[in-house]
Amino acid sequence: MGHPVVAVGIVFVSAFIAMAASSQYSHPLDPLTATEITAIRAAVLASPLVPARPLFFHYVGLDEPDKPDVLFYAYGAAATAAATTSSQMTLPRRAFVIARAGGQSHEFTVDIADNASVLSHAIHRGPGFPMFTAEDQIAAMALPYKYPPFVESVWRRGLDVGEVGCGVLSRGWFGREQPAYGGARVAKMECLVVDYNATANIYARPLEGVVMVVDLDQMAIIGYRDRAVFTVPKAEGTDYRADKVGPPFTGPAAPPGVVVQPDGRGFHVDGHLVKWANWEFHVGFDMRAGTVISLASLNDTDAGGLQWRRVLYRGFVSEIFVPYMDPEEEWYFHTFVDAGEYGLGASASQLQRGADCPANAVYTDGYYAGSDGKPVKAEDVICLFERYAGDVAWRHTDGIGPGRPFSEVRSDVTLVVRMVVTVGNYDYTLDWEFKTVGSIKIVVSLSGILEMKAINYTHVDQIREDTHGTLITENTIGVYHDHFVTYHLDLDIDGTKNSFIKNTIVPKRNTGVRATGGAPTPRRSYWTVLYEVAETEAEGQVNINGAPADLLFVNPNKKTKVGNEVGYRLIPAGATATSLLADDDYPERRASYTKKQVWVTPYNKSEKWVSGLYAEQSTGDDNLAAWSKRNRRIKDEDIVLWYTVGLHHVPYQEDFPVMPTISGALELRPSNFFERNPLIRTKPPGNSPNCSCSVGGSG
Amino acid sequence: MGHPVVAVGIVFVSAFIAMAASSQYSHPLDPLTATEITAIRAAVLASPLVPARPLFFHYVGLDEPDKPDVLFYAYGAAATAAATTSSQMTLPRRAFVIARAGGQSHEFTVDIADNASVLSHAIHRGPGFPMFTAEDQIAAMALPYKYPPFVESVWRRGLDVGEVGCGVLSRGWFGREQPAYGGARVAKMECLVVDYNATANIYARPLEGVVMVVDLDQMAIIGYRDRAVFTVPKAEGTDYRADKVGPPFTGPAAPPGVVVQPDGRGFHVDGHLVKWANWEFHVGFDMRAGTVISLASLNDTDAGGLQWRRVLYRGFVSEIFVPYMDPEEEWYFHTFVDAGEYGLGASASQLQRGADCPANAVYTDGYYAGSDGKPVKAEDVICLFERYAGDVAWRHTDGIGPGRPFSEVRSDVTLVVRMVVTVGNYDYTLDWEFKTVGSIKIVVSLSGILEMKAINYTHVDQIREDTHGTLITENTIGVYHDHFVTYHLDLDIDGTKNSFIKNTIVPKRNTGVRATGGAPTPRRSYWTVLYEVAETEAEGQVNINGAPADLLFVNPNKKTKVGNEVGYRLIPAGATATSLLADDDYPERRASYTKKQVWVTPYNKSEKWVSGLYAEQSTGDDNLAAWSKRNRRIKDEDIVLWYTVGLHHVPYQEDFPVMPTISGALELRPSNFFERNPLIRTKPPGNSPNCSCSVGGSG
Repeated sequence: MGHPVVAVGIVFVSAFIAMAASSQYSHPLDPLTATEITAIRAAVLASPLVPARPLFFHYVGLDEPDKPDVLFYAYGAAATAAATTSSQMTLPRRAFVIARAGGQSHEFTVDIADNASVLSHAIHRGPGFPMFTAEDQIAAMALPYKYPPFVESVWRRGLDVGEVGCGVLSRGWFGREQPAYGGARVAKMECLVVDYNATANIYARPLEGVVMVVDLDQMAIIGYRDRAVFTVPKAEGTDYRADKVGPPFTGPAAPPGVVVQPDGRGFHVDGHLVKWANWEFHVGFDMRAGTVISLASLNDTDAGGLQWRRVLYRGFVSEIFVPYMDPEEEWYFHTFVDAGEYGLGASASQLQRGADCPANAVYTDGYYAGSDGKPVKAEDVICLFERYAGDVAWRHTDGIGPGRPFSEVRSDVTLVVRMVVTVGNYDYTLDWEFKTVGSIKIVVSLSGILEMKAINYTHVDQIREDTHGTLITENTIGVYHDHFVTYHLDLDIDGTKNSFIKNTIVPKRNTGVRATGGAPTPRRSYWTVLYEVAETEAEGQVNINGAPADLLFVNPNKKTKVGNEVGYRLIPAGATATSLLADDDYPERRASYTKKQVWVTPYNKSEKWVSGLYAEQSTGDDNLAAWSKRNRRIKDEDIVLWYTVGLHHVPYQEDFPVMPTISGALELRPSNFFERNPLIRTKPPGNSPNCSCSVGGSG
Repeated sequence: MGHPVVAVGIVFVSAFIAMAASSQYSHPLDPLTATEITAIRAAVLASPLVPARPLFFHYVGLDEPDKPDVLFYAYGAAATAAATTSSQMTLPRRAFVIARAGGQSHEFTVDIADNASVLSHAIHRGPGFPMFTAEDQIAAMALPYKYPPFVESVWRRGLDVGEVGCGVLSRGWFGREQPAYGGARVAKMECLVVDYNATANIYARPLEGVVMVVDLDQMAIIGYRDRAVFTVPKAEGTDYRADKVGPPFTGPAAPPGVVVQPDGRGFHVDGHLVKWANWEFHVGFDMRAGTVISLASLNDTDAGGLQWRRVLYRGFVSEIFVPYMDPEEEWYFHTFVDAGEYGLGASASQLQRGADCPANAVYTDGYYAGSDGKPVKAEDVICLFERYAGDVAWRHTDGIGPGRPFSEVRSDVTLVVRMVVTVGNYDYTLDWEFKTVGSIKIVVSLSGILEMKAINYTHVDQIREDTHGTLITENTIGVYHDHFVTYHLDLDIDGTKNSFIKNTIVPKRNTGVRATGGAPTPRRSYWTVLYEVAETEAEGQVNINGAPADLLFVNPNKKTKVGNEVGYRLIPAGATATSLLADDDYPERRASYTKKQVWVTPYNKSEKWVSGLYAEQSTGDDNLAAWSKRNRRIKDEDIVLWYTVGLHHVPYQEDFPVMPTISGALELRPSNFFERNPLIRTKPPGNSPNCSCSVGGSG
């Protein structure tokens, strides 16, 4: 979610603006470089198409070349028949820009191959707004201090304005039941007691009861309500910074452990391309989506020679929808769409070496545009490391006779691509884990700080009504909420055209009739697999908590030697909650796709953002459910999987003052993709070397 | 499951029989030592109660002291009011023995404190039989070679009897629809082509069509059927041994990685007691259950001083039910209950150092009784290691002002207790993972080899009927099946008496009426938590794929400072399949508890084995569902959670010739157990040391 003071991390990162030109891009999917962002800014500002000033940049990202052209670039003519470019690959290099000026949202495409120039311009006329900028939020934060009703509210609570801080929260969308403010770009503001000397945990001390409405284009407070005074929870026991809680550190201690790789790392990074074991893929960065994985392909070593086989054209987090479950005045609108409102890449945290990622990690930076259009360097926001978790890839013990029993065991080593996104109070660790067996495991881990509501109760026994949350400490409710993390996964299993198969596991009565000629048996039941191809989008929507089924993405045009369709299977791994909001409720209309974990659509370059391109105050007219109403054909087409990891979060006292990590995941696993287990010809682990360490090394 | 040649691993392990006396037990829950097993054998054989000979030992295990007495021993008088022993703790040391003699199953309790002597004897008169012994299986394996119809069947297939091997498979229970054989202890036998020179993968080459019935007490073949000849799949491409597939090793390669602990290990093992970070627990071994975790308690360091708080009195795998989904003659009875038929401890594999467990692991042995009653040493069957998986325990990035933003991150280190159980073709890696945050994560990982069925088809296009599986290579069907791994989890959350709470997450309509006095809001819906205490066993049965709910085990007599019941939450993590067999089908009647993942019962010392004490050919009269029909009270009682991890397994070609690991899990997570996140006062990770390794060290 987004909460007060969310912007601040970004401000400080912006101090690291890259002054030197970054290296030129080398791959058509490479993210924009600092030099390119500078050139894009100049082109937009020089364009006569938008004379209105000031002009603020809300989104600047790669407008990637058409998919057939990228496939042609990456894999050659075999991969696509539709490439529009010739064999000399000079793919267009373009950016897509959304800027606000004159009270309107402007869209630009900018050619940045040579002298950057604006190729096209359009004005967005529909509902919704682009992402907030850091500067939006910082400017808004200064307003309450000069707003007399707010100053009075602070005094009324026995506080000084110097002790409070306010932040910008999206106001959601509630149709005509919410003031329209003439279509202005408005948000809400709520406040906290901010006293870092007392505690770093500003979220633990809300100034409950006060809500402001701010016009972000006019940068003025246009609405104010101070409903009631609530006790501000105490600072004591809320801090979590090491220098405030110790020494002594009386918490449970496990000894340090370091992964040492005697032969060095196993992966190779060339620009943004990563090669590791049997995998190759491209790691990009986008200020809205965060990490973008592209062109993930497997070298099928068992097939002999170098056989690159495609798996994932593009994968990224499309949205994180976080509705809170408190219908009160100050809370009902807390229905955040984090990517579309705050930006996951723009909210990425600098990774802490040896803590967020292990000692054997490597780090990369990202660049995005500030609201002035200048490049902002997001330092160390992606790490890559090989994970040695002590898992087993496969094993068997068997054998009779001399030299037996024997055990054959292959340890599992995986490659993790990690980003941590801190959107206000919440921290999302977003992992892409590549496995040699061919799986991609996508993990979202949640930590950070709860959104807390101040309440006058100090004990559960005092409570007679529904407080919409858990009393997690005195005067503090951890409010019920959900997390729906939706992934855009453009699977291209061994080629572009795929089908979505529901292999439903159905119970059967044993009739005693034996097709193969055996005698009747006393077994009365069993199950079998009902194979169904999803013909259209309506058939591609699945609630995975319903009938058990193996869900597969297959290439119906490629078969294994014995005739099975080559495919990948979707395996949910916990966190399969779906939305419980009413279908006619406004936040649900914006995110109606959260009623099913699985949606499948035909590829459409414009369908990237599951809650719509203008997700801030979106109305559901441009979301996945709206697109899918056309019920397009998805059989033997270039299809995209949209998968939502969902959690209902009932807070517990352990979530205070900072939350222990909880995770959800999905796995994409080869299923008849290979002719057999691809790790059979993998060397067993050797003897463990003797290692020694000297303390005081570099972190 | 159990399959031919299952016994062989055990035979070779038995060559390591401990000749020297093992150290004396030091804790009342310590597993039986080799010395004790020897004494138990002598006492039973010397007893005049069973004159019949030969007498075979099928189960010898600790008959643990009564729970109040163990609690008194472990935690003192505060823990229990019902202890029967006085303060000088000389707890009885007893064994429970099941032996076969004279065609009957005999039960003994043996006092082994001083001079071992039989305390009681009973004859089991109901249905079902004890576990097979390794010797049962080895003796039966020799029978087919001298059985002329079998020899003829082998010749008819163009093979020599020297090329085949047969194994003992439980025949399940099918009521009166299966011959009774006068109540004899009978099993089935099926055969494979066994030629380790051609391939170690004996399961890939079934001698399909032949089934024998063997009387295990008379040790004679008493039934025979050769229905039809099927093509034996070829050996080529089935082997998985490193020395057969390479060099060169052309499979995907990741570099070696070693976890180095510069300050050494963080856990301390004293006998069978383990202390690590904030945890203390006891690790036992049982020939049926495998690993047994007892008396798991947490030191609540945040509460100040040493505050041991109880979590789990006892936890173990009670059963693994594996029904296959082929109703044909040769397959319908493949409805294995692995623990009750083959024994998980007796089937535990010697762990491969540096492969099954990482280099920083320590190993312990187990002892059990052979069918002659003599101790068998199961070497290195349990390992313990600290896991450095690169996960984050908690984190947050925040801050405004000088020295900010800042990030606070705590890495996650966990302690894993691992056993690998190889029951014939399947390998189960069974982990108990303890987390400093207070969680116990229980993971089952499946690998090994599929049960395969020979078929004459070589291509999917030839198939017109339901083959009850996937054509995974030529002439080979990987048969559909389920795995239901059921855990007995005697939770004692901060004391003995607990309640089971279903906090159902229920949608609500926003009526606009505000209890706290705010204005109506346009929000139309939200969810809240419906708190329900399960009063009786019927209310304790939950299908977790139904309505979303937080399931908690609480101590209703202990509350946090703000008044929440202290508790633990059950979090399923994938693998939540339930049985699809018909309620009236015989295997389902034996394992009817597999229709719900969650059952809660009042503690009863005799209710350990979810499919009954005599699970082999059990009828369901002594299983969890039968016990729970009494619908006993479970509110504010000493209660036990039975949780089933379930997987429907549709094989894919990648599962051949050996299966990549697939996992299911559950987590028991403190939820209002602590006053707050217990890791707040934990020291952040320091700088990573510089480490170097020399190759050629000891494995």
